[in-house]
Amino acid sequence: MSYPYDYRPIGIFDSGVGGLTVLQELLVRFPQETFIYLGDTARVPYGTKSPATVQRYTIQVAEFLLRQEVKCLVAACNTASALGLPALRSHCTTPVLGVIEPGCQAAVGVLPGGIGRVGVIGTHATIASAAYARTLTLLVPECHIRSLSCPLFVPVVEEGWTSYPSAQLLIRESLQPFIDDPVDVLILGCTHYPILKSQIAAALGPKTILVDSAQAVALALNRMMGSGIVLPSAQRDTVRFYVTDAAPRFREVAARFLPQLEIDSIEVVDL
Amino acid sequence: MSYPYDYRPIGIFDSGVGGLTVLQELLVRFPQETFIYLGDTARVPYGTKSPATVQRYTIQVAEFLLRQEVKCLVAACNTASALGLPALRSHCTTPVLGVIEPGCQAAVGVLPGGIGRVGVIGTHATIASAAYARTLTLLVPECHIRSLSCPLFVPVVEEGWTSYPSAQLLIRESLQPFIDDPVDVLILGCTHYPILKSQIAAALGPKTILVDSAQAVALALNRMMGSGIVLPSAQRDTVRFYVTDAAPRFREVAARFLPQLEIDSIEVVDL
Repeated sequence: MSYPYDYRPIGIFDSGVGGLTVLQELLVRFPQETFIYLGDTARVPYGTKSPATVQRYTIQVAEFLLRQEVKCLVAACNTASALGLPALRSHCTTPVLGVIEPGCQAAVGVLPGGIGRVGVIGTHATIASAAYARTLTLLVPECHIRSLSCPLFVPVVEEGWTSYPSAQLLIRESLQPFIDDPVDVLILGCTHYPILKSQIAAALGPKTILVDSAQAVALALNRMMGSGIVLPSAQRDTVRFYVTDAAPRFREVAARFLPQLEIDSIEVVDL
Repeated sequence: MSYPYDYRPIGIFDSGVGGLTVLQELLVRFPQETFIYLGDTARVPYGTKSPATVQRYTIQVAEFLLRQEVKCLVAACNTASALGLPALRSHCTTPVLGVIEPGCQAAVGVLPGGIGRVGVIGTHATIASAAYARTLTLLVPECHIRSLSCPLFVPVVEEGWTSYPSAQLLIRESLQPFIDDPVDVLILGCTHYPILKSQIAAALGPKTILVDSAQAVALALNRMMGSGIVLPSAQRDTVRFYVTDAAPRFREVAARFLPQLEIDSIEVVDL
């Protein structure tokens, strides 16, 4: 084969474990790629912090991955994508992909006739940034968008509380505006939320289509990287995992979160 | 008056807003004192982080307050008290008070006959540190101690979700071990938990006495500082508030948390 395959790893980062839902999708779609995952566990969560702080953290995290000579960066974190991406793109020449644009494109793609009511749920910071609403309006100016922050979903997922009756009730109470007045498509604008997909679907009923951005990110990554992305004959290394805090929590939550993902070793780094 | 009153402020810190329950109690007990409150909001929460990281953050936060020439330091954070206090005490000569010892003394004080079953609830980090169990065992070797982490209580409080039916159900489900097999005294080992006191009491029934450490901290502070603490004639300044992240969240949560506390201005600092 004479294609100019690029054997450098793909860098992927999140404030913590949420981005593992994206990583898992990328592992399935690109089985010959190697990945470096960085979870900024010393400073998780980003979702309640100010734009300036999220920007600073995003640049620091990206700089670490760039020193590992990654061929591209995936911000597998909605808050970092919403608040840190413009600063990050002006900071480096390496291609950078967030989760918001791919998610919006996927939502528009499943809208009946391309027009309809779109809901977005996410953390306080993501919703306050209005990044989804801005991007959706660019794609489909006539679409009707409603946003809602669901800040308790992340702790419910991280604590493995998803199957408790109180969690189902909390999800129903949180989504009440979309139960009273339904949308056609709901974007799960937080990488933790796919873990609650069946509970969210149960609360909203079958008329609302749920879009999680992990699959959309895989498609967008393929487009962005072109022939550089597929390595049909190489052996895939294990993913390399880095965190900024040494707590056993990352491994515990990751195991509960994505039991099929094997994590051999996790290295702690200072940013 | 010729007493050697010490007009320097009292430094009080927490990873975020939780310590405001302690500050409020100190404001009531010591109306003539001035206070400096620092919330490490850029790195909140501490409760899910490793001991080494919590120690590092505790020292950095304390150093900031020491530069403001405080006369004593109150760690109004159970996680910092459990994990950071020994390091902090060996780091500085200024008197340091945590919340754990006062809370344990208060619990022992209300035990019928000084003997009985004590429960402790807190964050993952506080419970994993076993700091309460160790301190209680020193005070009352024969007391029977059971600990339980209730990690979802903090986000429920911070999101102002306390009066939702799902929150009451979540509290009941979380405290199930203490409903099935009651304790005589339950220590609320997290400065957020007093906000849920009535819901916790409703779940456990009247036979379990709840101890929140804020009042105990006020008593302990009086003992520790002696005559230096009371300034009967001085005018009290407004509390000075510092945070490490600029998000409006601190003010919002604080207002929901403690509506009677007036916050004029909040300064952002880098540690």
